[in-house]
Amino acid sequence: MTQKYEGMWEELGLDIPAHEALLKVLGQFYGDIYLSQEGRLKGAEYLDFVLSEVHGLRIQELLEAKSRGQKVVGTFCIFVPEEIILAAGGICVGLCAGAEIGFDKAEAVLPRTTCALIKSFMGFKLARLCPFFESCDLVVGETTCDGKKKAYEVLAEHAPVYVMEVPQMKEARDRALWRDEVVRFKDRIEELSGVTVTAERLSVAIRQVNDRRRALQRLNTLRKSVPVPISGRDVLLVNQIAFYDDPGRFTQKIGELCDELESRIARAEGIAPAGAPRLMLSGCPMAVPNWKIPYVVESAGAVLVGEESCIGTRSTRELVAEDGTTMDGMIDRLVDRYFRIDCACFTPNTERLQHIVEMAKDLQVDGVIHYALQFCTPYAMEAFKVEKALEKEGIPMLRIETDYGNEDAQILKNRVEAFVEMIG
Amino acid sequence: MTQKYEGMWEELGLDIPAHEALLKVLGQFYGDIYLSQEGRLKGAEYLDFVLSEVHGLRIQELLEAKSRGQKVVGTFCIFVPEEIILAAGGICVGLCAGAEIGFDKAEAVLPRTTCALIKSFMGFKLARLCPFFESCDLVVGETTCDGKKKAYEVLAEHAPVYVMEVPQMKEARDRALWRDEVVRFKDRIEELSGVTVTAERLSVAIRQVNDRRRALQRLNTLRKSVPVPISGRDVLLVNQIAFYDDPGRFTQKIGELCDELESRIARAEGIAPAGAPRLMLSGCPMAVPNWKIPYVVESAGAVLVGEESCIGTRSTRELVAEDGTTMDGMIDRLVDRYFRIDCACFTPNTERLQHIVEMAKDLQVDGVIHYALQFCTPYAMEAFKVEKALEKEGIPMLRIETDYGNEDAQILKNRVEAFVEMIG
Repeated sequence: MTQKYEGMWEELGLDIPAHEALLKVLGQFYGDIYLSQEGRLKGAEYLDFVLSEVHGLRIQELLEAKSRGQKVVGTFCIFVPEEIILAAGGICVGLCAGAEIGFDKAEAVLPRTTCALIKSFMGFKLARLCPFFESCDLVVGETTCDGKKKAYEVLAEHAPVYVMEVPQMKEARDRALWRDEVVRFKDRIEELSGVTVTAERLSVAIRQVNDRRRALQRLNTLRKSVPVPISGRDVLLVNQIAFYDDPGRFTQKIGELCDELESRIARAEGIAPAGAPRLMLSGCPMAVPNWKIPYVVESAGAVLVGEESCIGTRSTRELVAEDGTTMDGMIDRLVDRYFRIDCACFTPNTERLQHIVEMAKDLQVDGVIHYALQFCTPYAMEAFKVEKALEKEGIPMLRIETDYGNEDAQILKNRVEAFVEMIG
Repeated sequence: MTQKYEGMWEELGLDIPAHEALLKVLGQFYGDIYLSQEGRLKGAEYLDFVLSEVHGLRIQELLEAKSRGQKVVGTFCIFVPEEIILAAGGICVGLCAGAEIGFDKAEAVLPRTTCALIKSFMGFKLARLCPFFESCDLVVGETTCDGKKKAYEVLAEHAPVYVMEVPQMKEARDRALWRDEVVRFKDRIEELSGVTVTAERLSVAIRQVNDRRRALQRLNTLRKSVPVPISGRDVLLVNQIAFYDDPGRFTQKIGELCDELESRIARAEGIAPAGAPRLMLSGCPMAVPNWKIPYVVESAGAVLVGEESCIGTRSTRELVAEDGTTMDGMIDRLVDRYFRIDCACFTPNTERLQHIVEMAKDLQVDGVIHYALQFCTPYAMEAFKVEKALEKEGIPMLRIETDYGNEDAQILKNRVEAFVEMIG
């Protein structure tokens, strides 16, 4: 890939030697964690291809779109209503990052006690290693946690940053504030793109994003089967790719993957024995290439059947109601849908506890692994409540706090193995 | 004190032996840091008395007030409009805590990576060591940071907690939300106390709290003199006591202290030589008995002439306009005053940078010590911006992150001494 795209990366201002080294490491890492799996679906070829071309072909597509006048908008959070970006002819890409890259540069502008996700996006930006970042016409932050909220102020010195205010409660006054924010965002995107978001365009975009969510909902339903027909790490990858790839293509490919899953299920084939302990993950998002915990869990003989996170069901659980006809009506439906997100940034956030318990029962899991990034106060604090809620239902939980490093790999492995053994 | 109040503490449910041990340690600590100072003001006797009776006489006063039907409301943040509590005949006490107490209990319900201030109030509550906490009819939290926001959910399992939502930006929509919150708070306090907050009562309360702020403003003006007439740690203590003592008595006593300061200034007497390096603190609040940094700084031969923190000028800089005549008008003036607080919870928060630079110039400091509690993301992140803003003005800054422990005492001492030497 290197030679083919080097000119493009140079034009984007990437640090070419460092970027080359990064791709090499990622390729090896992907091979170890993904390509080594047995009994993988044919449809996983799509995943492998997207990942192998994530900094190549996909970036080329973005740049071609930009040359046609389309705008590329980067986001860090599922609160940003992608529908509005699409309705303005734009492209939305997720910029959350899951690798320990550029941390030396990030720690020169942020406290060392900042979560790895924030240090990672700051590091990728400052070290000039993310072609998505460099392709963005606008980068949209949001006030979901102290760390991101204040880090965007720093990021704004290096990129065109716009911040949406997400309120902290879910009362009528908060809904009003959030509605104002969605409208302000629409205005900003219209200004950026020069395209007016009409009711017609918005209606198409709402259906398009819902279609992607429906495809992921179908996948989540199919994977519940016994034996489990697809590995948890493959589904995590599907969820991760949803933030990078073209929504139409993604929906089609995941549809094909689901068709294949259905025939596999009909043949009662699984990627793990029928008796393998079923686990679900709950907590912080896992951005590419943060595959550490799923790999450890599935290497321990368990199988992951759900991800209660932003790169998981938190992002796909709810659809936007499609019965809006006027602009105001559609904005209300968008506002309501996004306002139902059960992020730990809200107080209280009891819906999340209900969702986790419901999900654990529906997926018939033997246990839950709660995962918080170190220094992620909202999820680390909520972990205690999640544990209590699950305890009441007799569902065991393992609480993990970690970062993107490998220093704790052996400890994590030991803890996960002990947990799997206990519930097995 | 122990014998005299033991019955009262027992009735409040305190852990008597542990509380006795705590008072003993505090007394020694206070002696070392405060009573050892030379050239102290006569007015400091008030401070010594209040501190020596903080868990005794003051609690007795609170309980007597309660027996007369008055309500005691505990707070953790200067966003809570004390005026409304006073107007309803209530008493407001600060519950922020500055000691490493009950951390084992706190860490059983909160992540280890929680700031010391939060662990401390949780620890005091769970270990039953704070008679203020145990006297409260209502405890008022707020959404200023992730840590407190989520910790209040846990605290609510152990105390009657009410949470105010502080918005994260300062736009019109945020002001509207904050106004709703102030009115909702008034309703809650009226419900608690059974007292209607009339315009007349609120007007009196606004003047009363302003009077306390004016007394502290006067103190802050007088301490600017060369040579500095009062130690920084004594002024910090004054600011700390402002959250515990009766506002009327406090204002009178600080007035007397200021009179004494004026005659000392007239005699050109100081607590440090005229040439001693002048420093100011900036950052996180320092709650009783967190006197670690001021002690280290003043032991290094410098003198503190300002505290840019919630237990400092952030709390006293602004008055509530006293020209309101109707309830609506007074609420607006309260809302506006509190909304001007330059807390790091806001994004952006450029006012704070301006305030720090103005203050540093006005106080003619030789340097600034920025102090963030470890894991306090908002202030730790803003420290980088503060440093840049001061650098532009040629004012040196030392960035400190620490907790309530003494493990880093020697390192802090070395760093502060090197800084003082550099600027001296």
